Amino acid sequence: KLNTNENPYPPPPAVVEAIRSAATGPLNRYPDPQATSFRRAAAERLGLPGPDWILAGNGSDEILTILVRAFVGEGEALRLPHPSYILYRTLADIQGARWEQVDFDDAWQLPPAFAAPRDDLKLALLPNPNSPSGTVLPSDRIARIADSLTCPLVVDEAYVDFATDDCLRLVQANERVLVTRTLSKSYGLAGLRFGFLVAQPNVIAELGKIKDSYNCDAISIAAATAAMHSGPWLDDVVAKMNATRVRLADGLQRLGFTVTPSHANFVWCRHPAMVGDAASASHADVYQFLKQNQILVRYMDFPPWGDGLRISVGTDDQIDACLLMIGRALESLSLPANTTASSSPSSAATA
Amino acid sequence: KLNTNENPYPPPPAVVEAIRSAATGPLNRYPDPQATSFRRAAAERLGLPGPDWILAGNGSDEILTILVRAFVGEGEALRLPHPSYILYRTLADIQGARWEQVDFDDAWQLPPAFAAPRDDLKLALLPNPNSPSGTVLPSDRIARIADSLTCPLVVDEAYVDFATDDCLRLVQANERVLVTRTLSKSYGLAGLRFGFLVAQPNVIAELGKIKDSYNCDAISIAAATAAMHSGPWLDDVVAKMNATRVRLADGLQRLGFTVTPSHANFVWCRHPAMVGDAASASHADVYQFLKQNQILVRYMDFPPWGDGLRISVGTDDQIDACLLMIGRALESLSLPANTTASSSPSSAATA
Repeated sequence: KLNTNENPYPPPPAVVEAIRSAATGPLNRYPDPQATSFRRAAAERLGLPGPDWILAGNGSDEILTILVRAFVGEGEALRLPHPSYILYRTLADIQGARWEQVDFDDAWQLPPAFAAPRDDLKLALLPNPNSPSGTVLPSDRIARIADSLTCPLVVDEAYVDFATDDCLRLVQANERVLVTRTLSKSYGLAGLRFGFLVAQPNVIAELGKIKDSYNCDAISIAAATAAMHSGPWLDDVVAKMNATRVRLADGLQRLGFTVTPSHANFVWCRHPAMVGDAASASHADVYQFLKQNQILVRYMDFPPWGDGLRISVGTDDQIDACLLMIGRALESLSLPANTTASSSPSSAATA
Repeated sequence: KLNTNENPYPPPPAVVEAIRSAATGPLNRYPDPQATSFRRAAAERLGLPGPDWILAGNGSDEILTILVRAFVGEGEALRLPHPSYILYRTLADIQGARWEQVDFDDAWQLPPAFAAPRDDLKLALLPNPNSPSGTVLPSDRIARIADSLTCPLVVDEAYVDFATDDCLRLVQANERVLVTRTLSKSYGLAGLRFGFLVAQPNVIAELGKIKDSYNCDAISIAAATAAMHSGPWLDDVVAKMNATRVRLADGLQRLGFTVTPSHANFVWCRHPAMVGDAASASHADVYQFLKQNQILVRYMDFPPWGDGLRISVGTDDQIDACLLMIGRALESLSLPANTTASSSPSSAATA
């Protein structure tokens, strides 16, 4: 299962222990509506001035829902890059709001249009690292986008633990920069539903009035707090997964794919023979072949931008099995692997 | 702590075991977005035609949030009785919607105005049993209200397990009747955040598009499923708490309070000497006295309707301690308990 960017490894042992302990805690009582223990631990872990810079949520999806409800009224607009996380458009639609897409260029950079202010634009959303590309914009570029915009800019850092840069310091410099995080990816806790927002305290206080009072349960608060104390575990798992990402990218390149350099726990790849009018096969064919062989990757099509495959970083064994099966898929499509590609720069995936 | 209608007893042992077991489950994987295991168990428990009649949520608060977002646009209106659950007004305010209150009469019955259709009225919310009163409207009365209204009617049955009637059969008869439930009260799981909606399948399907994809986490789904299989546990706890409710109501009446007959895990009481222009003391004084003695009850004021105390049903020991301290509060306010009140009908609280 390499289609939803989950962590292939179980969560930190301290988290499992915290859950087992919370199971016999006072579950008949309402949880702490402020998730204080988590916010304290997260502020310390992230080097923030204090817990009042953090809002805890039932997954970062809930945080994103709260942000769209708070900032974008019916008929108003939000901005997002394309291709990126499709949830943003869904949230705008639910809210009765409009959305405006700004296309990434071929090098996954954003044109100036993304930073252009507009009267009815109430929120801009920017995943960094982005999905499906795994690419990042440098934080100083994002700082300039935020300075140019007159509305809040949400930097969705769901995958940031797999990258080397982040935007937390921008939050302290500009109250219109809001950063979302999740425990679903790097911490191996997709099943737990826990995410959070980092923003200036006055922003957090206002958003706190919109969230459901008890949006995080007692067990997930205890688990997320334990996760914040699991720094060495996180470092180990991220190092292991980033090494596997190199293995995956190298393998795909050997098979003839063009692999976008990734800073996340997945890679985006396209095969030259499956792109453009002269394509002799399609990425959807590879996806189907893999699916028939019990391997799930993500086929994504972003017309007119194009399609491709997004493959999550699993364990080394899972990735080896996936690569083997992709090779067989290419054979079945009469596209023998480009075994001469060993000269292509494998460092692309280590950037 | 008798102020937020929590269950004084820990949750069913099978729930605790389910949580401990889920702690070592695949938490690195996203949970079932449909909470299928829970919906199956709940449909069976409640005698519903199937799981597609149920939508699971992160507490019934989230279900109520989803309903208001789904049905009430900016500038449109929702209706609620007064006094009742204050969250409804908050949700309307967040949505930029208007709310219209219809006052209960002195016998906690609703006037015909609550059932009057109106063009811009998009949702009506009716807690049954109601808070703070603990009173119920018979389900056939609610059926007539729903028939008269042209918008959906949400019957909030958070406390229904402590009562003898419910509105589930109305859902099958009228697609505009929606019933919300929670595991926070009767199941002793306020800390877990789990609630659900019962509605016709087409309604559930539409609302499912609005909720966050993964709104319920893997642990709470496992726990809530186990709760649905804990019928005998629930029967025992409800019987015990309803007996304690009689003890609480009788004790309050002996102390001179007027106690509203309750069908929930709390009672609403007012002291004749604290009501009206000639009041010689106030309910807020009693609340403060109790608070200073480490007993929390809920003081609620609903101008112009009046104020009073809402006291949750704790254990027998907690209730005895509370009654003792209320007696001392009355003494401190020079309001000796009405020790001759034994002729008043104690059955009021058992109805």
